[in-house]
Amino acid sequence: MSGITLHYFDVHARAEPLRLIFAYAGVEYTDHKISFEEWGTLKASNFAEFGQLPCLDIDGERLVQSQSMVRYVAQKFGFYPSDIKEIYQVESICDLKEDIYRGLVPNLYTNNVEGLEKFMTETAPQALGFLNKRLEKNHNGEGFFVGDRISMADFQVFQIVHDYFLASNRKDKYEHLVDTHAPKVKALVHRIIESSPALKTYLENRGERPF
Amino acid sequence: MSGITLHYFDVHARAEPLRLIFAYAGVEYTDHKISFEEWGTLKASNFAEFGQLPCLDIDGERLVQSQSMVRYVAQKFGFYPSDIKEIYQVESICDLKEDIYRGLVPNLYTNNVEGLEKFMTETAPQALGFLNKRLEKNHNGEGFFVGDRISMADFQVFQIVHDYFLASNRKDKYEHLVDTHAPKVKALVHRIIESSPALKTYLENRGERPF
Repeated sequence: MSGITLHYFDVHARAEPLRLIFAYAGVEYTDHKISFEEWGTLKASNFAEFGQLPCLDIDGERLVQSQSMVRYVAQKFGFYPSDIKEIYQVESICDLKEDIYRGLVPNLYTNNVEGLEKFMTETAPQALGFLNKRLEKNHNGEGFFVGDRISMADFQVFQIVHDYFLASNRKDKYEHLVDTHAPKVKALVHRIIESSPALKTYLENRGERPF
Repeated sequence: MSGITLHYFDVHARAEPLRLIFAYAGVEYTDHKISFEEWGTLKASNFAEFGQLPCLDIDGERLVQSQSMVRYVAQKFGFYPSDIKEIYQVESICDLKEDIYRGLVPNLYTNNVEGLEKFMTETAPQALGFLNKRLEKNHNGEGFFVGDRISMADFQVFQIVHDYFLASNRKDKYEHLVDTHAPKVKALVHRIIESSPALKTYLENRGERPF
């Protein structure tokens, strides 16, 4: 028993970067999936410090705030640099990913079809282009976002690009955006999957979710 | 010449945590204020990597993404811990501050009076309470958010609570929320001001802005 428990709803969304890192790194954990009904009761019992899921039990603490959790896990398992310029490179890419996430994903859980199309048409092309351009600055885009190793930045970008543009339930509509505006990022996503049989298995078995 | 230049509009908003840290730490920098008209031209010239302000010229690089910039500056000037549990404590408070910021400040620049009141009535009390409760966990709320020294977390919370609830153009309407839900945070804000004549002078002279 690793003693790690992730508490979240039965969706990908805010917990998925953690699940991807755990799969890739072979970290065992309990994936505690909470129904929306159950959450009402848990929330009232001060289950989560700031009243939100996901939260993560690890090293004797209950962590909250998804980005802080991902950073903690990335640091603990060796996916985070120590040099402040490299930290900036990682974090600024994660901030861009967060901008994309906040523009895109709420449209899925509010079923805002128009908002989603507007984002995909007006915002996504430029944002994908920014990701691709940054990736190209490091080893001509043939490696990872920062330095010579996979980092938090690669996992965060993996989630947004794989799950929301390239996954089997999205690719018919959105893969062409990645092909056009972020071909190096697409290649990175596939390199990461091919480099990790454990991640590949996880992706094949996790099942589709609406977001 | 320190060689540091901050590029932003003539508002507080996303650049203010940097200005507060620079004032507190006595760091010299050029505060390059850009008009909205000027920004159109600059943006088209790829002035900022992701097409957004603020950005910060420092150590030979042009940094973007406000939270990544604040983290870089906090690390460079000694306002960031090195232990991963302490990093989590700092970062999760900054994430909560970011949630408050995103719920509150866009209402100011879109002049959404109703949205602002809704946030202040429905969301702010609980969020302020979360800040206060976390602060109380460290030295009973008599010190700083994390450890024994001021950190990025204190500066980020300072900005949101001081500038949007306690500043002279806000206090009539919103100070009571801080008094009721976050008295320890209010005391921290005042302790920080009183501990730094340079910060105090900066605050007295910066002038009011709409956000």
